[in-house]
This record gives sequence, C-alpha cells and structure tokens, in this order.
Amino acid sequence: MYRIGVDLGGTNIAVGLVNENAELVKKISSPTGASRPAEEIVKDIAKLCKSICAEMGISLSDIEGIGIASPGIANHDTGVVEYANNLPFKKFPIAQLLKDNLGESIPVRIENDANAAAWGEACAGAAKGSKNSIMITLGTGVGGGIIIDGKVYSGFNYAGGELGHIVIEVDGAPCSCGRRGCWEAYSSATALIRMTNEKLEECRASGRYTSMSQAARVSGRTACDHMRAGDEAAKEVYDKYIKYLASGLATIINIFQPEVISLGGGVSGEGQSLIDSLLPIIRKEQYGGTIVALTDIRIAKLGNDAGIIGAALLK
Amino acid sequence: MYRIGVDLGGTNIAVGLVNENAELVKKISSPTGASRPAEEIVKDIAKLCKSICAEMGISLSDIEGIGIASPGIANHDTGVVEYANNLPFKKFPIAQLLKDNLGESIPVRIENDANAAAWGEACAGAAKGSKNSIMITLGTGVGGGIIIDGKVYSGFNYAGGELGHIVIEVDGAPCSCGRRGCWEAYSSATALIRMTNEKLEECRASGRYTSMSQAARVSGRTACDHMRAGDEAAKEVYDKYIKYLASGLATIINIFQPEVISLGGGVSGEGQSLIDSLLPIIRKEQYGGTIVALTDIRIAKLGNDAGIIGAALLK
Repeated sequence: MYRIGVDLGGTNIAVGLVNENAELVKKISSPTGASRPAEEIVKDIAKLCKSICAEMGISLSDIEGIGIASPGIANHDTGVVEYANNLPFKKFPIAQLLKDNLGESIPVRIENDANAAAWGEACAGAAKGSKNSIMITLGTGVGGGIIIDGKVYSGFNYAGGELGHIVIEVDGAPCSCGRRGCWEAYSSATALIRMTNEKLEECRASGRYTSMSQAARVSGRTACDHMRAGDEAAKEVYDKYIKYLASGLATIINIFQPEVISLGGGVSGEGQSLIDSLLPIIRKEQYGGTIVALTDIRIAKLGNDAGIIGAALLK
Repeated sequence: MYRIGVDLGGTNIAVGLVNENAELVKKISSPTGASRPAEEIVKDIAKLCKSICAEMGISLSDIEGIGIASPGIANHDTGVVEYANNLPFKKFPIAQLLKDNLGESIPVRIENDANAAAWGEACAGAAKGSKNSIMITLGTGVGGGIIIDGKVYSGFNYAGGELGHIVIEVDGAPCSCGRRGCWEAYSSATALIRMTNEKLEECRASGRYTSMSQAARVSGRTACDHMRAGDEAAKEVYDKYIKYLASGLATIINIFQPEVISLGGGVSGEGQSLIDSLLPIIRKEQYGGTIVALTDIRIAKLGNDAGIIGAALLK
C-alpha cells in the first residue's frame, strides 16, 4: 500500500507517493494558479493524484490515505481550510472536495504546511522515535510545528504553532504579520540577508574592508561563507544572527522541553556548524541548566519533502 | 471520599482536604523548615495529612489520593523531585517516602507547583471545561502552567512550562534565572514595583509631580491605584507594564491558541480592569486576527488555593 502527500503552495502543487517505509518514491508537480477559484485548484490536485498513480502503474485503490499540507489555518478535525493568506480559501472544505473529485473512498486529511513538515520529521526524519518534538523552519519566514504526545498540536482553533511570531524584542524590527520584534524578523533567511546588507552599508559608509562587498548578490549564505573565509565583518553578522536564533531556541526549550528540535529551511543548509554555533548559547540560557535531560538540536532530514511526507503520513 | 492536596513551599507546607465537588473544605499548615533534611520535611507532610483527617473526623482510608505541589522539577511519572531551588531535594523520591510514612496504600502523585495551580484552575477554576488552557501567575515571578488535551504538559524531562522565562527583550533587564530580558523581568509584580520606583526617581529628578510619591510604601498596587485616581505618571507606569504583559500574552496565544488563559498571582487582584486594559493590545497583536475563535483571557478563580486543589486532583 502507498500513501499520497500533497504540498499545496502559493506557487506550486507538489504531489508525492510515499511507500510503507515512509519513503518518497515519486514526486510530480504543477503550478498552483493561486488566482483561480479554489475548486479549480482541487481539480488539479485530483488530476495529480491520478497521474502519479498512473505513472507508477498502481491504481487509486492501492492508496491508503491522502494528506494535504496547506498554508494557513487548516482544521484537521473537519478537513476545512479556515483561511489561507495566499490562496483563495475561506472556510473551504478541501478534503471533502478532493474526495468528491477522486470518486473513491480514500481518507483525505489536512494539516497546516509547517505542522505537516514537523509531522514528517517526527515520523520519518530528524525527530523519528520521539514523542515530543518541535520543528523550526528558517526560510523566507520562521515556521514552526509542534508535536506533543505523538500528535500535531495546533490549539483549540487550529491556528497555533506560529513559533515565528513570538516577540523577542518588544518594539523591535517590523514583521510581516503586523507585530514588531517577532523572532521571524531576526532569525529568518530574510532577516539574515537584511543584517548582511546593513553591515555592508555600515562598512561602505566607514570605509571598512569586507570581502562580502565582492559578492555578486547577497543571500542567506553570504555572511556564513565569508565568515568561514575569515572576514571579520561577516563574522559580526553571523554572530548577531546566531545570538537571536539561539535566544529564540532557548525560549522554545523553556516552554516545551521537547526531546528534539529539528531545524529546517534554507539556513539549516549550514549543517552541523550551525548547531555547533548555537549550542553553547542555548545551554547557557536554558532553564534548569544541565540538571535535566537535554533537548537535542538537530538539522532536519527531509528537506523540501518534509511537508509532502508529513502530509502523506497524517493519521 | 476525599482527596488531599499538599502545597509545599519554601516557607510553609499547606495541606488541604478537597471533597468530591473539588471544593477545599479544610486547610492547615506548618512551617517548612527548608534547611532540614528532606526526610524530615516528608515526616511533617505525613503528620499534617493525619492531622487534617483527625480534625475532620475521617480516617486515612477515606482518602482517595494525595497530591504534592512542589517547587522545581517534579517527575510526575516516577514521583521523584529531580531538583528544587529552595528545598533540599535532589532526585528525591518524595511520593514513595510519603507513602512509607503514612503506612497506607493511598496513591501519591506529584507535580510542579505552577503546573498544579494550572491544573487546579483547569479542573475547578477559571478554565473549567476546557481541554487546552494556560495559567500565568503574576507574582514575585511569572509562573506558567500548560494544560494540553486534559493533561499537564511539562516536556520529556518534566522541566517545561517555564513561561516566565521566554525572552521578550534580547539583552534586556536581568532575570533571576540568569538570562536577560525574560518576560518575568517585565511582567511580575516585582517588575511592576521596579518600574514604579524608576518612575518615582525620574519624577523626583525632574521635579515632576506624582501622587505616588505620597505612598508610604511602593507595592504592585501603587501604580494601579494612583492611575485610577488620575495620576499621569502612574498611568505611564501602568501602560508600560500592560504593554509588556500583553506582548507576552499575545506570544502565548500565537504558540498555543489555548481555549483559556487564566491570570493568577498578586497582580491579577486588579480583576476585570486588568483584562480590559490587555485585550485591545492582545487582539491586535495575535496571529490570525479575528478569523479564528479567540482565546478567552480570564482572572483565575482559586487564588492561593489553586496549587492545593490542583495537587489534590492530580490523576
């Protein structure tokens, strides 16, 4: 038997086939066309589900379950997306509609995309084997997913787990959510790029040398790469970024004391050296010191497929 | 049948008898004598349990269960207090020892004191009827207790739920835990007193009038009382305090989206006017705006007895 995971994004719909070992064996995608009516988008999801089965030479009746990772507020009890910022969904019964479109009685489950990714890492990735884990995605924003007692936790209204939107600096940098000083505004790849540009500007204004000024284009990797090559200004950017990221992670530990925190998203591409930079600060700042068993901080394993795999494995 | 709740503090041991309606029917206490060996403290807890039964004319066999609310890290699975800052407990099997001292086969359960208070409010107080709730205690420090899916959540190592130690201002005011900028350093009664004293000093230095300077002694109520009497400087202190408190509460909502947050501790004595001051800021800052069902913010109902009642009702 197989399961299908759907990662529904503002740009693309990615659909994957997951086998009994929780491995992604095939992935196909098509553009979302997010400006179309919601019903059209569901029709395309159904088509992709049929296509992936056809391409693998299996039938829909070989599919044990389908899961959809959706942006926004996804009610996993009713299968209704309450709202999504970048899709035309408002109290949209996506699970039922997909079932209707497929004409088969396959269970369809839904979850918020960041939560689905956390579930994927918990079932088949970096947090496999733990009952309580948190996933933090360091990308354009800072996403969060909370797994408690072997289940996705999203609060009584399914809108919880917005870990990027904890304020770490009252009156601080503006955040896309409207608040000021959110963790996302300091620890996303976007924030790292902003800090890098600020440092470049500062160096330019003061005539200070930095090898970063030779970069063709500033990305989330610029400060990391140049820091490793010995550039002092780049190290200042990196240290500042690490300080904020570590502070937020210590806060997450003080709240949840999870067995595992897995770090995903573009910035996590830095790998173990990122964790090595974070750990001394986190261990110093976390409550309870080293009296208790310590939360393990790991790089996420499933990369961009975490959402698809997590969605497929929804129960 | 009755249950017994023990609130074990650094200064006093309070023991209460709780009836089948979760009402506290009798409470007695004695000094903790925290510098004595841990075993002596347990002997006194046993004595108090026997005394309260004797005073109420019931026998120990009428007791369905005993719960102990302890400071520090309390392992509710093993009954061992891993560590407590202000008591001589280190990997101390308090539950088993109390059983041995009582010589009866009554189940003894333990929980961290802030968690027990949250459990009390969830079972019999402000959050009664909800499955997911958070209690925040605004006292000398800021305490937190997390109830998820009808159970106390304290992480895989029982040290979680330290909601006072989420950093809301990186490099901010020093906190008793060793970090800087914790919520506790801005939203405890202690912080409110500090802010009041700072304003008094500022007014003194600039020759500005404030009726607060006539207060015999600055307490957590000084700024609130004088603000209500129309003093402008007092209003500035109150508004600043409310701003930080609301920011932390919005963060708690963004993480947990609990059905209920109950506010306890000295500052919560301000009652509904405190909530009326907080709500406009929280509703503006919380993620998801008003698309989803809203977390109810309430004043805790059980006062200082929340820990005893919660401990008695531990399952």
